[in-house]
Amino acid sequence: MDHDLTVIGLDAGGTSTRAVLVDSGAHCLGYGIGGRGNPTSAGPERAADGVMDAIEKSLRGSGKSLPDVAVITASMAGKRARNDETWLTDRLEQAGFRGRLTFESDLLAAYYSGSAEPFGYALVSGTGACVIRVADGDIDGTGDGLGWLLGDRGSGFWIGQRVARAVVEDLDGTGPATSLTPALIEALGLQPDDTRTEGRSQTLALVVSALYDRAPIELASFAILAFSDDDDPVATGILRAAGEHLADTLSAVYTTPATVVVGGSVLARPGPVREAFDARLGDRAAALDVRLVSDGAVGAGLLALRAAGVAPTTAALQTLATTLAAHR
Amino acid sequence: MDHDLTVIGLDAGGTSTRAVLVDSGAHCLGYGIGGRGNPTSAGPERAADGVMDAIEKSLRGSGKSLPDVAVITASMAGKRARNDETWLTDRLEQAGFRGRLTFESDLLAAYYSGSAEPFGYALVSGTGACVIRVADGDIDGTGDGLGWLLGDRGSGFWIGQRVARAVVEDLDGTGPATSLTPALIEALGLQPDDTRTEGRSQTLALVVSALYDRAPIELASFAILAFSDDDDPVATGILRAAGEHLADTLSAVYTTPATVVVGGSVLARPGPVREAFDARLGDRAAALDVRLVSDGAVGAGLLALRAAGVAPTTAALQTLATTLAAHR
Repeated sequence: MDHDLTVIGLDAGGTSTRAVLVDSGAHCLGYGIGGRGNPTSAGPERAADGVMDAIEKSLRGSGKSLPDVAVITASMAGKRARNDETWLTDRLEQAGFRGRLTFESDLLAAYYSGSAEPFGYALVSGTGACVIRVADGDIDGTGDGLGWLLGDRGSGFWIGQRVARAVVEDLDGTGPATSLTPALIEALGLQPDDTRTEGRSQTLALVVSALYDRAPIELASFAILAFSDDDDPVATGILRAAGEHLADTLSAVYTTPATVVVGGSVLARPGPVREAFDARLGDRAAALDVRLVSDGAVGAGLLALRAAGVAPTTAALQTLATTLAAHR
Repeated sequence: MDHDLTVIGLDAGGTSTRAVLVDSGAHCLGYGIGGRGNPTSAGPERAADGVMDAIEKSLRGSGKSLPDVAVITASMAGKRARNDETWLTDRLEQAGFRGRLTFESDLLAAYYSGSAEPFGYALVSGTGACVIRVADGDIDGTGDGLGWLLGDRGSGFWIGQRVARAVVEDLDGTGPATSLTPALIEALGLQPDDTRTEGRSQTLALVVSALYDRAPIELASFAILAFSDDDDPVATGILRAAGEHLADTLSAVYTTPATVVVGGSVLARPGPVREAFDARLGDRAAALDVRLVSDGAVGAGLLALRAAGVAPTTAALQTLATTLAAHR
């Protein structure tokens, strides 16, 4: 083992990018957060800005510089990001990087943030929702992750779209009254207007217009409203259905009991999603070792070490998790 | 009554525009079909082209020209089209029109294509889905019509999106096998590829990529696949759910028994949608007088006459329907 080995793991996401500077003993030497790092959603230039910013911050005060780094491993969603790497390689070369750049799935980084075992599962429900089964240390099964239009059942988008639908159905008279309605009207910054045209309230027209003026994916931002009222049966019903969907997606890739690393905001909160998730899994829930992780930074670091020839171990995971926590 | 009165009714839709040239006795003097006529979806210039083309064709061989036309009534979806009328008024003036231009809802035109009674309902399920209640001859209640992202339950888009979701879930292993899968793969012009990466078939990646490369609304074009296999339980389940949603939307605006004018392709076909629609309405189904209409052309003509002071009657509807049929 090269004791001078230094690597950087990147957990590059749709909203922010984390860079973890790690030595061969899995000690965190530096940590930095940058902007959006996915070239598919943010565009290549902006994503490169986000990644480079995170890298520079991780090096600051570490005594290391980019020419010292042997491997950078970028964990991110989407195969497309990996087909053409020049969006990132050019910028890294300009900054003095002479090592190897490799790519991994953000879901595998989430997995290694909670487990270094060669077999297990990761379930991430943030804006999107996806489950992977890991065998021999790599992904060998995937469930959902099909995007907002075709899948991502139980994700933040899925919940947010159902919140929006429940509100317009309430205002339309085709669905039950719900406390989500005043909450969404306030979140949209609208003033209720009970004027009716063709039997339809002006408030409904305002809400519909405001929602269509945004990109569809932004409906994910309204998921939080469903978590805000424990006593509203519509909100609780949406959250319970999300938990059941996530359990079903896990069940689709499930083979034998193991650790389930859980990431993303949807299952991080106690309440109806988690309760319905456990209930739907039934006996399986007790056999699974569920571990919540806040993001994929630790796993991104372990994957960068792996790319440099240092196999992930439980001891390395613990070392990196502990030393990284000191940098956050 | 002005016996020389000549009006044009426009049924201007997202894919085509129908123009009906009508005299005071509700006789059709000419009929023309043009391109897309909705300025919100097609853009103002293209929509004006579609409308003007339909108008010119309706006048051809009628012995009438635009200066003879007293009223043009454009029936179309969307309030926005009516806020700024210059997209159409400028072109009409250039072409010699000196009369009045008025706008009506396309749903009201659908209603008057099947009924001239002052009270009743219209249910249209094409790409979108909406129900209106008509009282005193005008819309006084509306259900759904909330667009593809927030509503339109039971519409062509709704069915097409569920077809696409069922196929990706089948390929993903999170949903049951369905004959919709080979049908959609063929419709997309793809070659199945059983290579697996990270436990996921290349076919799934190809289908997902092809579907996200289109505008979301184009999922509506896959609704037809659900109607193509009576023996597939997944397809039948989607169609039954669509029928139930449409019945629920009608029930939301229902007050007393009357005629229900039904437009759009979804309820035009016999089979699971209609069966589930009737079953869900229960006793109400027997009390309703359901009349299918192929489009809103007849109603658009009656609404143009109404704008010119000629009230709709059942006799006028029958005259226009009969004389228009001779022009189609």
